[in-house]
Amino acid sequence: MFKKILYLLLLCLSTKTFADDGYRLWLKYDLIKKQQERESYARLTKFIVVNSQLDIIKTASIEFQSGLKGLLGKSVPVVTSSKSTGGIVFQLSLNKDLNEEGYSITSQNGNIVINANTEKGILYGTFELLRNIQTGKSLANISIVSNPKIQYRMLNHWDNPLGTIERGYAGSSLWKWYELPENIDPRYKDYARANASIGINATVVNNVNASARFMTKEYLLKVKALADVFRPYGIKVFLSINFAAPKILKGTKTSDPLDPQVRAWWQAKTQEIYSIIPDFGGYLVKANSEGEPGPQDFGRTHADGANMLAEALKPYTGVVIWRAFVYKPSSKDDQKGDRYKEAYKDFKPLDGQFDKKVIVQVKNGPIDFQPREPFHPLFGAMPKTPLAMEFQITQEYLGFTTNLVYLAPLFKECLESDTYVNGKGSTVAKVIDGSLHDYQLTAIAGVANTGSDRNWTGHFMSQANWYAFGRLAWNHELSSEQIADEWVKMTLSHEPKTVKTVTKLLIESRENYVNFTTPLGLHHIMGQGIHFGPEPWLMKSDRPDWASAYYHRADTLGIGFDRTKNGSEALLLYTSEVQNQWNDPAKTPLPYLLWFHHVGWKTKLSTGNTLWDELCTRYYTGLASVKDMRKQWDSVKPNIDKEIFEDVAGRLAVQEREAIWWRDACVLYFQQYSKMPIPAQFPKPERSLEEVKKLVEIYQLR
Amino acid sequence: MFKKILYLLLLCLSTKTFADDGYRLWLKYDLIKKQQERESYARLTKFIVVNSQLDIIKTASIEFQSGLKGLLGKSVPVVTSSKSTGGIVFQLSLNKDLNEEGYSITSQNGNIVINANTEKGILYGTFELLRNIQTGKSLANISIVSNPKIQYRMLNHWDNPLGTIERGYAGSSLWKWYELPENIDPRYKDYARANASIGINATVVNNVNASARFMTKEYLLKVKALADVFRPYGIKVFLSINFAAPKILKGTKTSDPLDPQVRAWWQAKTQEIYSIIPDFGGYLVKANSEGEPGPQDFGRTHADGANMLAEALKPYTGVVIWRAFVYKPSSKDDQKGDRYKEAYKDFKPLDGQFDKKVIVQVKNGPIDFQPREPFHPLFGAMPKTPLAMEFQITQEYLGFTTNLVYLAPLFKECLESDTYVNGKGSTVAKVIDGSLHDYQLTAIAGVANTGSDRNWTGHFMSQANWYAFGRLAWNHELSSEQIADEWVKMTLSHEPKTVKTVTKLLIESRENYVNFTTPLGLHHIMGQGIHFGPEPWLMKSDRPDWASAYYHRADTLGIGFDRTKNGSEALLLYTSEVQNQWNDPAKTPLPYLLWFHHVGWKTKLSTGNTLWDELCTRYYTGLASVKDMRKQWDSVKPNIDKEIFEDVAGRLAVQEREAIWWRDACVLYFQQYSKMPIPAQFPKPERSLEEVKKLVEIYQLR
Repeated sequence: MFKKILYLLLLCLSTKTFADDGYRLWLKYDLIKKQQERESYARLTKFIVVNSQLDIIKTASIEFQSGLKGLLGKSVPVVTSSKSTGGIVFQLSLNKDLNEEGYSITSQNGNIVINANTEKGILYGTFELLRNIQTGKSLANISIVSNPKIQYRMLNHWDNPLGTIERGYAGSSLWKWYELPENIDPRYKDYARANASIGINATVVNNVNASARFMTKEYLLKVKALADVFRPYGIKVFLSINFAAPKILKGTKTSDPLDPQVRAWWQAKTQEIYSIIPDFGGYLVKANSEGEPGPQDFGRTHADGANMLAEALKPYTGVVIWRAFVYKPSSKDDQKGDRYKEAYKDFKPLDGQFDKKVIVQVKNGPIDFQPREPFHPLFGAMPKTPLAMEFQITQEYLGFTTNLVYLAPLFKECLESDTYVNGKGSTVAKVIDGSLHDYQLTAIAGVANTGSDRNWTGHFMSQANWYAFGRLAWNHELSSEQIADEWVKMTLSHEPKTVKTVTKLLIESRENYVNFTTPLGLHHIMGQGIHFGPEPWLMKSDRPDWASAYYHRADTLGIGFDRTKNGSEALLLYTSEVQNQWNDPAKTPLPYLLWFHHVGWKTKLSTGNTLWDELCTRYYTGLASVKDMRKQWDSVKPNIDKEIFEDVAGRLAVQEREAIWWRDACVLYFQQYSKMPIPAQFPKPERSLEEVKKLVEIYQLR
Repeated sequence: MFKKILYLLLLCLSTKTFADDGYRLWLKYDLIKKQQERESYARLTKFIVVNSQLDIIKTASIEFQSGLKGLLGKSVPVVTSSKSTGGIVFQLSLNKDLNEEGYSITSQNGNIVINANTEKGILYGTFELLRNIQTGKSLANISIVSNPKIQYRMLNHWDNPLGTIERGYAGSSLWKWYELPENIDPRYKDYARANASIGINATVVNNVNASARFMTKEYLLKVKALADVFRPYGIKVFLSINFAAPKILKGTKTSDPLDPQVRAWWQAKTQEIYSIIPDFGGYLVKANSEGEPGPQDFGRTHADGANMLAEALKPYTGVVIWRAFVYKPSSKDDQKGDRYKEAYKDFKPLDGQFDKKVIVQVKNGPIDFQPREPFHPLFGAMPKTPLAMEFQITQEYLGFTTNLVYLAPLFKECLESDTYVNGKGSTVAKVIDGSLHDYQLTAIAGVANTGSDRNWTGHFMSQANWYAFGRLAWNHELSSEQIADEWVKMTLSHEPKTVKTVTKLLIESRENYVNFTTPLGLHHIMGQGIHFGPEPWLMKSDRPDWASAYYHRADTLGIGFDRTKNGSEALLLYTSEVQNQWNDPAKTPLPYLLWFHHVGWKTKLSTGNTLWDELCTRYYTGLASVKDMRKQWDSVKPNIDKEIFEDVAGRLAVQEREAIWWRDACVLYFQQYSKMPIPAQFPKPERSLEEVKKLVEIYQLR
């Protein structure tokens, strides 16, 4: 026996179990090191009482068993009833303090009871209990009541049929369409587990720039295979649709939403989908945006298009999620033209015209997932239309997978912004969770950062962004620090100094990134071709509002986009209280200054610096902060798995290189206009402007 | 202690060490089950005598130690000298029976001595010795002398800078260009290990449709980081070049190879490359092919272009590998026009005009990696020019990653083809290995099937194609069976029935694939957009020679491409002996019949069937063989790792579905011309022609 164990052990060793490749995410379930701790948990988890055969309940008990097997190194029996104490009880029973997916976890006469109204609540409660053990919390007198604040907590995958991912940087798509439906990659299940563990209950598996092939039976059967894997984890599948699908698939002569044949086509298609996937979630639509087809191609409105799909979905539980990310090129002679205003112009007038089954999905900011944006003016402006939040988890504009940027602070900043539409405290979060306008449907979406890379997200630390999105989707009142602390303990280490250091690293990372790329409210000055590196010098593009100069408007007088009534008037889209925050350049918080004002180079800022000096200071300190991040990371080396440590250390080194480009590019480019010297305390840039331009060009070559 | 071990073990179990995800390829080093066997090997491997500090020798000893740690579950000490017996001795000493990379393994007074002229020989000998243990061979009185028959044994990666792979189906590129040079993915090393273990000593890391960015210092430093990882495994890095790079990178006004400034640019660039990568392998060039730039853009010949690069490489060890894959569209009024002849027309006249440093790389067949092609007419036709073989390991035309197709028989079929240029026995293999024309440079390339998928190749069984390529590159006299047997034992199981069954499965798989896709010499009738599925009905494409009809020429009289003197005359490019094999439709072996002849539907074939009946029979039996493959695979289930078994079983199910499409599509389409019934013994097709067309269309949609 002993010999056998030794051999097995050698086998384990020989396959390098101990180098952590990050595949297990925050569900590691590694053995708790302190025997005492293990035993104290073991005393409270002697058995699981389960008296339901529901698949999702089964999922919960299996997950709990494998969790404890890992964490405590022991097997926990599942029983249907028990008189004794020291066990876990799954209690599926009516509880009016809980909504459909909520749960409570309480100590009741010697047992820990997970109570919920539905099997999904039990599943989420089970993961909560596991999380408590993973993060080392005491279970004695545990008393938790938790309800998700938002109904649809979803990932949007911008995954294409041939396996590429638009704005994906972590390998290719998780979905192997050629192999489906017959071959089921075991990874599909691990994907579902990870999402369920953080409360994500919906996923859109295909790109919003959608292929019509997903509306064919051939592909619906593939999607069904995924839905069958996700269902036991409480996850519903949605599909992005190509609005022109009826015509593309030769079902109709047009795709006009008011054409009876088109309406009939969508009704028949929807019926077919539900015959294949009975719990299908619904449609996500990118229409009349960036070249995609839509109702406006036929002189109809977004409401006409969305309502047609809602009509098709009427007999079913599904909903229509219609994206508000639209921006017509503003006409040359329109002096007030500003991409900032486009979505508002199109959608605000439609408030009240959408079917009850329609949700309008709005990006957090008015431009496009920049490192920092003001909240989107549509939030609060459509009281009669459920608005969903669209965040981007994949780091399209935040350094791909070579920059450590923890996004919870970005998400929170937007959610906590006050729209003032119903007076103080009318936060974006309250718009999204429906409490402000009493929406009957609520949703929040994150554009996924997952891919086929072994660690799922490319940059190991980007796993924290997937995690944070899910946790905030469930409860937007959690703090960024709280979520970071949880994630670090579940994923990296329990050693107090390490937890403290890495949490701090995460919390500060986003502001650091803003500082060395787009400080003081600069935006959209990155390399155009692939949204990589700096390109503030781009004066022209296929569209004026794709060029950097359109946004920074640097000239010999100053820099920044005047969006006040003297400028594009975009600021007028907000309530007067919000306008007052940002109207006066002297009072505008520095993070938003150049979003709304064209400011003179020599203007003195609240920091005491001139604008030019402050701009330089931000770029230089931004770079310094990256060097500091590397020091902080090095300091925790002894407590981090070697493979993970090396990977993050390597990427931080790349980040420093990129930060130098950004600083050199922006400081030298804008200096051409300011004609002012770089403050004396800072060293010279490492490269000439020409040299940085060349570097960025290289990355745009075929 | 015991308790600790138990916990460690639980940890291993909790991370599922036992489900095999295929990552370890054929280097599993799992513990040998029979204790007796382990001990008998252990008696002969008590220590390793190493008295060299060369990196590659270090690689060999480390690999041998970790191999034995896994296989025998014991640590083997490395010593610098030993009087005792029962050990392994690395002996670096002159041996005239061995070429530069060859090795001998012999029992000498109680030790096993690996002897070689260079450290690379020791490395290859070490892997040979490990392979002997992995495949259960006895080491008693071992006596092996092995020399690679070809100098450059290389992989060609068609990997693009942004991570996509042209014709790659196993995820995204292994090379993380954004992260390089700072971040070194541990996988780079495992890639090098796998290649070294089968004797591959060179790799071209970027696509032949090359980005000029690889000629910039920014990227050369990234390539250097890879070269540094590969070097200790005896692998040299090559780069594909964009012939217009001097102009694209604004170094010159033209890229004319005879322009002095252009020649100077390449000389300076080459010098720069060697200053960064001292053992750089050289350049691979796709010129004037499928839109790529080349010397003909300036009225120069391929020789002019290649010789310019050779001149730049003159001071260094590197070589130029120039691809012969070119095919101008033959002019409408050229009645004899045939893509088959294009490369020959361009290159044959240049024989003798290439610099000594130039190798011309020729695809195995005259068209493009079809499931079966006659050998390329250039083989044997350029005695003064070293010709390299280009095989395709990735299954562009052989079912991507959803079809089990073992390619060794395809490779062997070409290598063993007799060109008769110097009389009988003038095989293609002898052209490639230089023995026929006394080439001073020899090379063989395989277009890689590797990607970021965990198991490297998507279809687990496709690992065997990577393995087989390497083994044949080293010794083209190995049989397909021998290689399959080795691979199965190293990768899947030692259980005799399993080895026999899976080996048979592999050996028959390629002919099965030919039968249900392109039997009797049909070729290039697949879906054009992505080379997926059947599309024999394609009459027109952007180029006539991209359309299916161009190749099958089906009409009411018959089917096939007459390439005799009455047709395109392509057959006349071969020696008379070869012509005689294929000249007479009555005598032409059936696998090549429709490659060279337009045959009447009712023509009786050697099988006794009419052409039409034989065609139907092949498509139907091809499908039947897939069903049988599934049965064979199911029969070995008890002896195969569960995860691997399920994955292959799932893909075989997909393969059956695709085989049905092919059969239905081709039988029904050609029946429109033959106007003859499907032989009575066969069931009706499952779909109408319209239905299959629709299916294929779906997979070609955006």
